Amino acid sequence: MPAPRAEAIIDCDIHQQMTGPQDLYPYLSKAYQERIRLFGTGLSQRVGYPNGGDRGGRSDAWPSDGNPWGSDLRLMQEQHLDRYNVEYGILLGQEYRPIPTLPDADYAAALARAYNDWMIEHWIMQDERLKGAAIIPAQNPKLAAQEIERIGPHPGIVGILMPNGSRVPYGQRCYDPIYDACVNLGLPIVLHTGSEGPGMNGQESYYIEKRQQRSQGYMGHLASMVFEGLFERYPTLRFVFVEGGYIWLPTFLWHMDEDWKMLRSETPWVTRPPSEYVFEHCRFTTQPMEQLEPKSRLLTIFAWARAEQTLLFASDYPHFDFDSPEQALPPLSDDLRRRIYSENARECFNLPRHAASMVAATAD
Amino acid sequence: MPAPRAEAIIDCDIHQQMTGPQDLYPYLSKAYQERIRLFGTGLSQRVGYPNGGDRGGRSDAWPSDGNPWGSDLRLMQEQHLDRYNVEYGILLGQEYRPIPTLPDADYAAALARAYNDWMIEHWIMQDERLKGAAIIPAQNPKLAAQEIERIGPHPGIVGILMPNGSRVPYGQRCYDPIYDACVNLGLPIVLHTGSEGPGMNGQESYYIEKRQQRSQGYMGHLASMVFEGLFERYPTLRFVFVEGGYIWLPTFLWHMDEDWKMLRSETPWVTRPPSEYVFEHCRFTTQPMEQLEPKSRLLTIFAWARAEQTLLFASDYPHFDFDSPEQALPPLSDDLRRRIYSENARECFNLPRHAASMVAATAD
Repeated sequence: MPAPRAEAIIDCDIHQQMTGPQDLYPYLSKAYQERIRLFGTGLSQRVGYPNGGDRGGRSDAWPSDGNPWGSDLRLMQEQHLDRYNVEYGILLGQEYRPIPTLPDADYAAALARAYNDWMIEHWIMQDERLKGAAIIPAQNPKLAAQEIERIGPHPGIVGILMPNGSRVPYGQRCYDPIYDACVNLGLPIVLHTGSEGPGMNGQESYYIEKRQQRSQGYMGHLASMVFEGLFERYPTLRFVFVEGGYIWLPTFLWHMDEDWKMLRSETPWVTRPPSEYVFEHCRFTTQPMEQLEPKSRLLTIFAWARAEQTLLFASDYPHFDFDSPEQALPPLSDDLRRRIYSENARECFNLPRHAASMVAATAD
Repeated sequence: MPAPRAEAIIDCDIHQQMTGPQDLYPYLSKAYQERIRLFGTGLSQRVGYPNGGDRGGRSDAWPSDGNPWGSDLRLMQEQHLDRYNVEYGILLGQEYRPIPTLPDADYAAALARAYNDWMIEHWIMQDERLKGAAIIPAQNPKLAAQEIERIGPHPGIVGILMPNGSRVPYGQRCYDPIYDACVNLGLPIVLHTGSEGPGMNGQESYYIEKRQQRSQGYMGHLASMVFEGLFERYPTLRFVFVEGGYIWLPTFLWHMDEDWKMLRSETPWVTRPPSEYVFEHCRFTTQPMEQLEPKSRLLTIFAWARAEQTLLFASDYPHFDFDSPEQALPPLSDDLRRRIYSENARECFNLPRHAASMVAATAD
């Protein structure tokens, strides 16, 4: 194995799994344990696309004990945290991310609590590089706010996680209890792709089609946030949009700005061009980053999208489409590189700077 | 009124209306006339956004007889066709475009036939500059194919119209009867925004939000067409995407190309990069065209999107957000200007070149 990189990075998208639902039982009531034994967790990707399972993880990310990829801290440390000199890695879970899609909000709240406690005990407390975004029962914003208030003060919790797929877009006022709680604690909302239903024009056939839809969900949320006046109501609220792409951002913002000039009488509380709200309040992660040729295309888009301010590195470890920190991006200026690989995330997640390098070199 | 422009243009998006449903009665059975008298046409925008009605049309486009905007051929000729030296204008209807959303396919087929016959008699036969895209009952592809076979051979019909909003995306095989009929007659499919349901993440609140969603529907259809292998099965089929934007196209295509490199085993019939199919088979119209600053941004995107091949001018007359041919685009090279304002559309719609200018000058 090569020596770790000298440059420490902050990785905003790392996925960890349980070995199975039984890992959750110590944190759940007997009634919910029994429910899971009888019926399973009830969580799913909702439609049968060929993603996840063996295909979902890097083939080298399966631990030798036969448990699922992403379930072994030692392997994650060796294969990722040490290897790439990860100063902080933000855990975004895996099989429990669809909790906000569950019909029963009380059960969802219990699962979210259990998941968050498990993540803190078995991951965050085991390696000081690891931080986590807490899952909430977003389908019931009052219950969600209670969980944010319960778990948000923990120093290992640096954000609140919600899926791209929602019942109504995230700018709408029904979510205000969630945003009140986040603003009170200074926590950003982290959106991760997943749990999307059929596209607006009907059910797609293939996983590769669903992937094209991720950015569309984020576009809908962004338009909702802007035109509902969310950022006028919450001047310090911020969002991180994970794994939904980035290169679509500039033209989407320009289109919103154009429409706003023409139609602003419909939403008069939107007093600034939409792009200004997005640049101020929203951040986006790199993976999966397109390898464009010529590379100048990507740099043009980075300039248009203000990457020096809005773009955060993410590897998506240990998913099959992992982006290596060494290959994800074309050559960048030192300053832009530092902004994307660490400083934008440090500011967004309020992560302290460490005095010294975290990791002892692991020579090969 | 200023003299008409010397340069003839082809306008791919003009909207005409009836004075009311009674205009349709001569083309409908007594039973359906009675149905409309009792229940209305059943057509709507489906949700109550503040668009359409007075707001939907240019304030100067209402005829003095009190009938709806877009219902008076003389006004259209004077205000648009003559004024801008329109060589061909393609009629895309207005209040009957949602026919494919009707629950009852037989009724939808009857309405589509009546609309098409009305358009030919009252518009296309009244001005040789006017051509039309025929509405079809797309919810029942066999009935739709029958209407294409009935009306498609008329020289005034240059395309087949379907709305952005669909029950399932347009790449899926259920639509093959429609595509068989179009290919047999050499007619392109014209998609126009409208009839979209709620976004994939739930119902939006505002009209300005719905507008951001138009491109998302087109993205879904494009991904469906590519990954279902539609263009492998129909090597001569072509689509025109109207009023759903254009500047989003390059980054969307690049993202599909990247995913295809990684995931092509799922859809092995897709043998070429997705962008190649789109460039070959798909065209896009200008309105509403963003006024970007600096203008070089738009020209960069035009180059990336191959505007010289894929972009067709549209004014959207007489809608409130009409794009004037004189102001819609920044200065372009003569060749690119000719491609966008007339030649791309001439090729796509198989429109003959006229020997002489069609229009006598109307000096002011």
